[in-house]
Amino acid sequence: MTVAQWSFDEAVEASAQAGIRWLGPWRHKLAGADLRDRARTLRHAGVRVSSLCRGGFFTPLDAAELAASDADNRRAVEQAAELGTDVLVLVCGPARGADLQAARSQVAAGIERLLPHAIEHGVRLAIEPLHPMLITERSVIVTLGEALDLAERFDAGEVGVIVDAYHVFWDPQVERQIARAGARILGFHVSDWVTPTGDATASRAMIGDGTIDLRGLRQLVERAGYDGPIEIEIISAELEAQPGDDVLDRALARFGDLMV
Amino acid sequence: MTVAQWSFDEAVEASAQAGIRWLGPWRHKLAGADLRDRARTLRHAGVRVSSLCRGGFFTPLDAAELAASDADNRRAVEQAAELGTDVLVLVCGPARGADLQAARSQVAAGIERLLPHAIEHGVRLAIEPLHPMLITERSVIVTLGEALDLAERFDAGEVGVIVDAYHVFWDPQVERQIARAGARILGFHVSDWVTPTGDATASRAMIGDGTIDLRGLRQLVERAGYDGPIEIEIISAELEAQPGDDVLDRALARFGDLMV
Repeated sequence: MTVAQWSFDEAVEASAQAGIRWLGPWRHKLAGADLRDRARTLRHAGVRVSSLCRGGFFTPLDAAELAASDADNRRAVEQAAELGTDVLVLVCGPARGADLQAARSQVAAGIERLLPHAIEHGVRLAIEPLHPMLITERSVIVTLGEALDLAERFDAGEVGVIVDAYHVFWDPQVERQIARAGARILGFHVSDWVTPTGDATASRAMIGDGTIDLRGLRQLVERAGYDGPIEIEIISAELEAQPGDDVLDRALARFGDLMV
Repeated sequence: MTVAQWSFDEAVEASAQAGIRWLGPWRHKLAGADLRDRARTLRHAGVRVSSLCRGGFFTPLDAAELAASDADNRRAVEQAAELGTDVLVLVCGPARGADLQAARSQVAAGIERLLPHAIEHGVRLAIEPLHPMLITERSVIVTLGEALDLAERFDAGEVGVIVDAYHVFWDPQVERQIARAGARILGFHVSDWVTPTGDATASRAMIGDGTIDLRGLRQLVERAGYDGPIEIEIISAELEAQPGDDVLDRALARFGDLMV
């Protein structure tokens, strides 16, 4: 999504050329694709899938939506397994026709329904808390503490969390909650924060252009035990309008400057 | 600020005509004014000041800024007293040239420096946590829990918090933290939330146009013991462009529908 202007195959090829060994694809890039074929493309390129984004949206308005959502989430689990990743990112959904508390209960129930299918396919469910700014559009789960309260209802090997710098950096409890998360950290996403002045969902800044202490957060997640891939995930209408190669080069250069 | 197109005097007159007995002015509306004269205007109109907004911005870059900020905050305390309110709202300031943790320490130190002057003038300091969306522009204090951790370092009669629906509604801990706040609740502000698509600081919605359960929040603050005025505070570029009388009429009608 950092180079959203590329197709899945273009992203795999550019990753291989740049020496990037992990890619975190979004499902809409794989719509209609033969996943066995895509998995072969990845193997040939020497690129592995760090996580699949996303399942979730557990807040249907009615029984028909619920059935469709459950079916889509089961399919997401299968796609993750087909692509060779054991992490499915969950964006939990906004409150729809219900108050926040009821929506949060819907999320818990949705995870509970999906979990047996995930376990069967060897896929772990990763709850991603989103910035409170996105509560009406994307997720009623807005703090890492809340995501962990939810994850801890389940086995640590089955349900964890994503730590996305953009979504959690502001939280006065971020240090404590990352330490608490420990082995439940299933992914670490980085981008940067400037106050949005346009579309709140596509206003992330290039790493280094904002105010987040990314190196500090990296230290916190690694101190908590996380040693998996770091995903650069800069959802940005501005970057999407630029040449993809430039965006990738800049992201990698900044990553080297700021994170290593 | 809900009818930001009006001067202070216009707001007082319109309030009196509408039967509103409390007004929460912002200081920039009083720049250069003789406050004894303004206090007389208020008395004649039968309107009292619920709170003065704002002191704060405790995150200076250097010693000169710190001195200027401290002087301005002492003046804000005096203005509150001159207008006959005992509540000064604190917007605590963003991180500037420091990390979040250091900025939060600057805020605590700033409150500690200001407090003796406030006590001397019979003015209570009200820490207002702002939405995490505003962390880079307005305030490193972004949750009610954090505001209370800070307020509780001081006497309950001297430092409290403002509960602003827009800033706290998203918090999974909001119910617990409002109950905890109890007698430290020094004000309750209402507006409504829609995801901003423009200026994040002036994107509040007319009460009833968004998703916040305002009646529910009112019950929580009243259950916690708050029985003071409720301030309608809708900072909105959209409303500021409309005729002030229309905005006030609509706000009062909605307040009647939703809050009472």
